Amino acid sequence: MSRIVYVNGAYVPEAEAKLSVFDRGLLFADAVYEVTAVIDGKLLDFPGHMARLRRSLAELRLPSPGSDEDILAVHRELLTRNALTQGHIYLMVTRGEADRDFVWPKGDTPPSFVLFTQKRDAIETREALEGLRIASVPDLRWGRRDIKTVQLLYPSLAKMEAKSRGKDDAWMVEDGTVTEGTSNNAYIVTREGTIVTRALSHAILHGITRVALMRGANEAGLTVEERPFTIAEAQDAQEAFITSAGAFVTPVVEIDDKPIGTGKPGPIARRLRALYLEEALRTGL
Amino acid sequence: MSRIVYVNGAYVPEAEAKLSVFDRGLLFADAVYEVTAVIDGKLLDFPGHMARLRRSLAELRLPSPGSDEDILAVHRELLTRNALTQGHIYLMVTRGEADRDFVWPKGDTPPSFVLFTQKRDAIETREALEGLRIASVPDLRWGRRDIKTVQLLYPSLAKMEAKSRGKDDAWMVEDGTVTEGTSNNAYIVTREGTIVTRALSHAILHGITRVALMRGANEAGLTVEERPFTIAEAQDAQEAFITSAGAFVTPVVEIDDKPIGTGKPGPIARRLRALYLEEALRTGL
Repeated sequence: MSRIVYVNGAYVPEAEAKLSVFDRGLLFADAVYEVTAVIDGKLLDFPGHMARLRRSLAELRLPSPGSDEDILAVHRELLTRNALTQGHIYLMVTRGEADRDFVWPKGDTPPSFVLFTQKRDAIETREALEGLRIASVPDLRWGRRDIKTVQLLYPSLAKMEAKSRGKDDAWMVEDGTVTEGTSNNAYIVTREGTIVTRALSHAILHGITRVALMRGANEAGLTVEERPFTIAEAQDAQEAFITSAGAFVTPVVEIDDKPIGTGKPGPIARRLRALYLEEALRTGL
Repeated sequence: MSRIVYVNGAYVPEAEAKLSVFDRGLLFADAVYEVTAVIDGKLLDFPGHMARLRRSLAELRLPSPGSDEDILAVHRELLTRNALTQGHIYLMVTRGEADRDFVWPKGDTPPSFVLFTQKRDAIETREALEGLRIASVPDLRWGRRDIKTVQLLYPSLAKMEAKSRGKDDAWMVEDGTVTEGTSNNAYIVTREGTIVTRALSHAILHGITRVALMRGANEAGLTVEERPFTIAEAQDAQEAFITSAGAFVTPVVEIDDKPIGTGKPGPIARRLRALYLEEALRTGL
């Protein structure tokens, strides 16, 4: 690793990229984040990520780290300094540094603002080509998953549980239906060809890629139904897939040891991925 | 502030007490903690805190930062260097520093280990003398509150909500009954004189002070019943109180605008506080 990282106004070598141990992001998970994909040096869905960041900040009454233009400038500078053309940029805003107290610090405490790049093959990944094998786990997360906080311990544990079962990722189940994946929204395509995904609520993240997916599906003449579905219904579907800012649209080929459809990436997921990438690159900044 | 803080083997001025922005404690709330009270320079219930720390580490398969003896030595050194005789010591263990990934880093990644002191009046506090006014809020935390993780965003939000209603703290309610306070266990004393507190489960923190409280209550000939209770039952109780490592036993005098008993700290809570402090100081290290 030898990246240049942005920390509170400074561009520093990653070994020097640090925050105080008194930062509330560390002591209270009092922080929100976004991850913006980069392809061909372009930022995908940047306005969508900024809109969601503003919503997360507002829900937690976190201070703003700057204007969208300021934040875009930091993204661009990091792309340049790290010569990044494919991968993503992680952004985090915390409630800043203060002596440890459940009560928030006084209002003029500056937020901590951190961004770093991660180089990744994003297009021709194994997951995109072969599809994901999914294990289901109970959803034990807190009640406001619509706020993109750093409280990611359970999603990380769920992913490790899936790996321990020899799978790629987990879908989380609550009250008998799938909420979402560990860091992605979940979809099935019924035998009738309808795309089904859970409606927005406090139970799931409001995916930026989910918005683009639904727009693309509509333009392609596909029907999207927003409702919960069970693991059994997913196992009986003709296709399944996930969306996320990092994985775009990625097919699911197996759920709890049962192959989905042919057990290979399906044509609808493949088509939606192509549509998404085309549109995201066309509108990328 | 001008404390000496312990960070990964070094004693440093607090302004230099930092962790990498790539620390999993910050990026994934992948960390556990303990807070040990200090009175007259003595560490209260230290073996209990170490036992719970070991349990938290084991539940998350986090690496150990050292033996109990090593950890005790760091506590003692911090007491000396900061001339602390009353307050507490905060301790945190994270899964360490690694490039951001929901999948854990390889097994030889060292944990991050941070300790710092906080000077506090602990005995004659306003809360102990006057009692706490409580507001109830829904319990929106994740499903494994028995593991003492840094996922404290919701408890912090709940405390702020209580403050915004002009109260001191919040009790969290799930499925109609009280789980616990934002950073403490919750108790009532029924009109028949029985102490009631929720049984241990994944729903609440397994309080170290709770163990001592129950032992003290038994020795004082008081009956303790472990079962859930409602806010209405609490409002009808003759007394209510909380326990935590920092607040010991602290009376509750009001819940959702209704005075409890006489509306003043009750004799049973006062007696249990005195018993706790006597025993904790006697056994303190």
